[in-house]
Amino acid sequence: MILSALLTSVGINLALCFLFFALYSILRKQPGNAGVYAPRLVAHGKSQERGDFSLERLLPSAGWVRMAWQPSEDELLSVSGLDGVVFMRIFIFSLRIFTFAAVIGVFILLPVNYMGDQPSLDFTGVQNKTLETFTISNVGDGSNRLWIHFCAVYVFTMFVCCLLYFEHAYISAKRLACFCSSKPQPQEFTVLVRSIPVTSGRSVSNTVESFFTEIYPSTYLSHNVVRRTSKLKNLINDADNLYGKLVRLRSGNGSEQRFKRTGFMGLSGRRVDLLEQYEKQLEDVEDNVRTEQSSVAMKEVRAAFVSFKTRLGAAIALHIRQGINPTEWTTERAPHPQDVYWPFFSASFTRRWICSILVIVAFTVLTVLFLIPVLIVQGLTNLDQLEGFFPFLKSILRISFISHVVTGYLPSLILQLFLYFIPPIMVVFSSIQGYVALSEIEKSACIKVLWFSIWNIFFANVLSGSALYRFSVLLEPKEIPNLLAVAVPGQATFFIAYVVTSGWTGTALELVRFMPLISSFMQRKFCGSSNDELEVPSIPYHGVIPRILFFGLLGVTYFFLAPLILPFLLVFLCMGYIIYRNQLLNVYVPKFDADGKFWPIVHNSTIFSLVLMHIIAIGIFGLKDLPLASSLTIPLPILTLIFNNYCQRRFLPTFKTYSAESLIKKDGDDQNDPTMSSFYEELATAYQDPALVPVRYSTNGERINSPLLGIPES
Amino acid sequence: MILSALLTSVGINLALCFLFFALYSILRKQPGNAGVYAPRLVAHGKSQERGDFSLERLLPSAGWVRMAWQPSEDELLSVSGLDGVVFMRIFIFSLRIFTFAAVIGVFILLPVNYMGDQPSLDFTGVQNKTLETFTISNVGDGSNRLWIHFCAVYVFTMFVCCLLYFEHAYISAKRLACFCSSKPQPQEFTVLVRSIPVTSGRSVSNTVESFFTEIYPSTYLSHNVVRRTSKLKNLINDADNLYGKLVRLRSGNGSEQRFKRTGFMGLSGRRVDLLEQYEKQLEDVEDNVRTEQSSVAMKEVRAAFVSFKTRLGAAIALHIRQGINPTEWTTERAPHPQDVYWPFFSASFTRRWICSILVIVAFTVLTVLFLIPVLIVQGLTNLDQLEGFFPFLKSILRISFISHVVTGYLPSLILQLFLYFIPPIMVVFSSIQGYVALSEIEKSACIKVLWFSIWNIFFANVLSGSALYRFSVLLEPKEIPNLLAVAVPGQATFFIAYVVTSGWTGTALELVRFMPLISSFMQRKFCGSSNDELEVPSIPYHGVIPRILFFGLLGVTYFFLAPLILPFLLVFLCMGYIIYRNQLLNVYVPKFDADGKFWPIVHNSTIFSLVLMHIIAIGIFGLKDLPLASSLTIPLPILTLIFNNYCQRRFLPTFKTYSAESLIKKDGDDQNDPTMSSFYEELATAYQDPALVPVRYSTNGERINSPLLGIPES
Repeated sequence: MILSALLTSVGINLALCFLFFALYSILRKQPGNAGVYAPRLVAHGKSQERGDFSLERLLPSAGWVRMAWQPSEDELLSVSGLDGVVFMRIFIFSLRIFTFAAVIGVFILLPVNYMGDQPSLDFTGVQNKTLETFTISNVGDGSNRLWIHFCAVYVFTMFVCCLLYFEHAYISAKRLACFCSSKPQPQEFTVLVRSIPVTSGRSVSNTVESFFTEIYPSTYLSHNVVRRTSKLKNLINDADNLYGKLVRLRSGNGSEQRFKRTGFMGLSGRRVDLLEQYEKQLEDVEDNVRTEQSSVAMKEVRAAFVSFKTRLGAAIALHIRQGINPTEWTTERAPHPQDVYWPFFSASFTRRWICSILVIVAFTVLTVLFLIPVLIVQGLTNLDQLEGFFPFLKSILRISFISHVVTGYLPSLILQLFLYFIPPIMVVFSSIQGYVALSEIEKSACIKVLWFSIWNIFFANVLSGSALYRFSVLLEPKEIPNLLAVAVPGQATFFIAYVVTSGWTGTALELVRFMPLISSFMQRKFCGSSNDELEVPSIPYHGVIPRILFFGLLGVTYFFLAPLILPFLLVFLCMGYIIYRNQLLNVYVPKFDADGKFWPIVHNSTIFSLVLMHIIAIGIFGLKDLPLASSLTIPLPILTLIFNNYCQRRFLPTFKTYSAESLIKKDGDDQNDPTMSSFYEELATAYQDPALVPVRYSTNGERINSPLLGIPES
Repeated sequence: MILSALLTSVGINLALCFLFFALYSILRKQPGNAGVYAPRLVAHGKSQERGDFSLERLLPSAGWVRMAWQPSEDELLSVSGLDGVVFMRIFIFSLRIFTFAAVIGVFILLPVNYMGDQPSLDFTGVQNKTLETFTISNVGDGSNRLWIHFCAVYVFTMFVCCLLYFEHAYISAKRLACFCSSKPQPQEFTVLVRSIPVTSGRSVSNTVESFFTEIYPSTYLSHNVVRRTSKLKNLINDADNLYGKLVRLRSGNGSEQRFKRTGFMGLSGRRVDLLEQYEKQLEDVEDNVRTEQSSVAMKEVRAAFVSFKTRLGAAIALHIRQGINPTEWTTERAPHPQDVYWPFFSASFTRRWICSILVIVAFTVLTVLFLIPVLIVQGLTNLDQLEGFFPFLKSILRISFISHVVTGYLPSLILQLFLYFIPPIMVVFSSIQGYVALSEIEKSACIKVLWFSIWNIFFANVLSGSALYRFSVLLEPKEIPNLLAVAVPGQATFFIAYVVTSGWTGTALELVRFMPLISSFMQRKFCGSSNDELEVPSIPYHGVIPRILFFGLLGVTYFFLAPLILPFLLVFLCMGYIIYRNQLLNVYVPKFDADGKFWPIVHNSTIFSLVLMHIIAIGIFGLKDLPLASSLTIPLPILTLIFNNYCQRRFLPTFKTYSAESLIKKDGDDQNDPTMSSFYEELATAYQDPALVPVRYSTNGERINSPLLGIPES
């Protein structure tokens, strides 16, 4: 790709970004859009309604940037929980790394590359120069200038490792501080016990009760046995649907929708009053729900949430094997009551095990099949190939602008569209895998999406672009550095274009929220919905975090190969920082709190990126006839992995458990707290399946005790 | 190798075995040898002295076999602890497997192989027939008879897996039963705390005291801070040496040794009384020891043994992270007081870490350098090659008997001699690695020796014998099955000879105990030692277990390739069973108890053997033009690994920790035990460094409070 093609792509995306910014700043001022652009504020009743029309409402402005910038980290913590803070730290961390990298890259490496003396096919004029001129490929073989790159790799690695260490320490401390200052949380006092051995004639509930009162007489508090409620849930769904129809009919405009013929397509037959019909149906379903609720008490699953009087008591039950047989009485951490993912409790151990194997297979199949669109996308970057396939396009493709669009912009756009479907699919996979907490599902999906991106965007593009797509290289570990060294620099321009398309425009699109905007518009137009039904969304971390981490990977690996990528990356990070802050403050509400457990993913991804960079560096220095530099780079990945090992020992335990010291301190504080007795009462029913809560649909429009997940207090 | 060479080797070894048996049954009856052949009985005062000479004493007899056979497993348990029982279970387990294998192998596979139709170089007469005729190589390519081998592999794998499951269950249950019936043990109530953070001005002891009394006020009992005692230990060693000399002088025969000249080589100068001199020196050293003992109290290491009042209390401290910083207050399981390996406590964390890296490097170097003797050994099996190197040997090597000895017996004998030095080296390696318990060192050495044997005896022989010794094959995983399929069957005869030499004669040698016999003889002749100084040996599990497991590996992999190996293996196992039972009952005393933790090694080794057999089977069926059988074998290793995974979940936790249920039950039992208060008193001093125990050498021959490790009560 030549420079002008890249510039075309940058131009298009820049224009799109400004368009989206302008659109956002106008749309958000329209009173009807509060539910789209500030649902969090609306839900908390903080949205200021602007009734009167003014010209200012139609002019774009940048006030929202200032408003997004202002809040401190503590305010952010109170608004979006620890996860939100950790999420924003990813931006801050990346900004720090890549500012440092950009200073070295742009002011040192770029001039060195540009003044390189590698003989190449000559182009005239800067405009038509290939971007290769700015990459390491332009430096002559065996040139001593490569030692500058060598030093840059070492310095950069050290900088990143230091930053990783301090960031890890910062977030561990933050996590601990949150724990220390938090009110008692049900999940701290509770463990989930599975594989309860039941002797015939005794209920699960009795077995749990007698087992735990016997071995922990002083700390055992209560338990909730999990029940098989899938049938009940279906009934409740039916009731909810009927109720929704009923409400719409009641608030609807008159009788034209209320009466309907019973016959074929509502055209023939007797006219019936739908309102009456639905009310009767609803009553029937409600009766069924109640019958089912009373009978469900018998359908016990061999799992229970067991609560203790102290945090230490729960920790003991969690960490020490309970039963003599290790496959019985297995304990695991209980999630927050609103974080529990109920459907999979009914599944037996074997079913969960089979499901998780199926998920692995499905994940692999998806990863392999996804190569097809990637290969097509890759084909579009080679104009000659395209002309070969579709000769009739020849005349069109000769137009300079079209060819620039096709080679510079289209490939990453198509890839982008395909990738749009990946995060939801991964969530489905993770939820089938048998996690009991929504936050665990999110975390697992996040890791899946990340690996999927690294493999399918990075490796597939790199390897299909230069050599054949060779799975077999995995069987020849010695060849990997050389292969990567040949292939990776060649794809620099593609990835710059990718940062611009996916990073810039993708993030700007996030701001405008087209889909919710359209659906809200449609609803208002055709269904006449009100804000009462407003559902506040939660941020899809599993989609966003892998994207940022993938850009981080690109930045780290291309830092010394093609430093030109860094400024584009910095623009993306700045945009992302402001936009996601704005969204966290206005749009999203945390549905659950993973307590900052996303950070280890960031850490591991960064370490992986560094090691990948080192492997490429070893290959590159070897190819460039500088074997000494190549050998001297070998200690670097080893040292990085040792550093990683140290970090995992030093920090990872703090992300998994709290220490006995802090648990005991917290327990001691609670003893003097007068509200504890009421907390214990709440705890006893906190882990009841929402489907078992008595449901009553009042005839005048209120649904009492909604089984939908509510919004946790932050 | 042809059949007659193998028969020569079998003949020699059989003769040797009978010789050793005869020798043993005569020697053990001589009254002077009680210290060699029944030191355990002598130490426990159960040895019957036979004073009067009779002819019966000079005739070999087999009474000891009956005596070794008789005791039940419970008696064995009381004599040699759970480790001894587990050790004998290895024999029983192997005997069961290989009896089954031998039935299939000898009665089904061997005839099939022998009637095979593979065209080969023809020899005349059974005597000169190569052993190849009895292996799978003799079955024609693509022959349907190979399906018999295929079925045998499946049936055998299923049988082994079932047996593994039941054996694992049996030993877990045994372990639990031992725990339930045992008296309170110090290690159950104690944890080892390391990396204690010390603020300046406070001693480690105070820090530990205040930390644990604060967080476990109700269960904390006492603690023992570890101290730097290397200097003190040297002094005590000096004192012990001096004391030994003194005792020998006192009991010595008169004055000829007592007086010595001070000058050159004791020939010139003043005559001095050595007795007086030594006594004076000993007093000086004793003074030094006392001074050092009092000053050593200041030399605290940041580690302590912390004891609790209940087992559950210790388990809580062990399993829950104590300090907020995960690198501080780290806890690990405390070994039995007599099992503690003191030297490495003084080492800092960094030093231990460096040491363990050095050990890995040293282990790798040793593994590689060991190939040299193996290659030489391998050269000896090829007569032609030998004649090429040493032409002058040609005439000697042409003698039939010599050539049989050289090809059949010598190679494995030489390998055997080299291997003799491996277990002690591995113990040194493991002790440098920084384990705190002797039993851990033994276990780690056991694993090291096992891997060393598998790599250096199995793979090195297999690969150097047929193809070049190719490290590079590790980089081409796809080639491994084919390579093994070509190479492994070719080495069948070598390994049969190896079983006969190393297995039969090696085990018979164990019975005769030549080295202790000679040293006891020398002592009695030249030093006039008495039975008071008798040191009862403990069984070197790290040397014996890997050998049995390696023979198991040979048996499993060669089961369908060359079933001829199985009868030889069965003879070895029967011999080993009787001989080691005899040795456990008469000779060895357990120095420590690893509580049956050797079993998981046996399990893993068996699973490895099975998977290796499957890989070879995949290769063989492929080579023999039966691709369907090859493909149908692929699920087998996968199923085996899944089975292994299940076993590890099901049983491994029981080998690591005891469950809360059993701990609490045991604690409850103790509460009614009146002896507990005295046990707590003992516990407070149980983990004192033996070097700190006050030492006094009485002038009339008694050494009070020996720092040597004593014999635990079983």
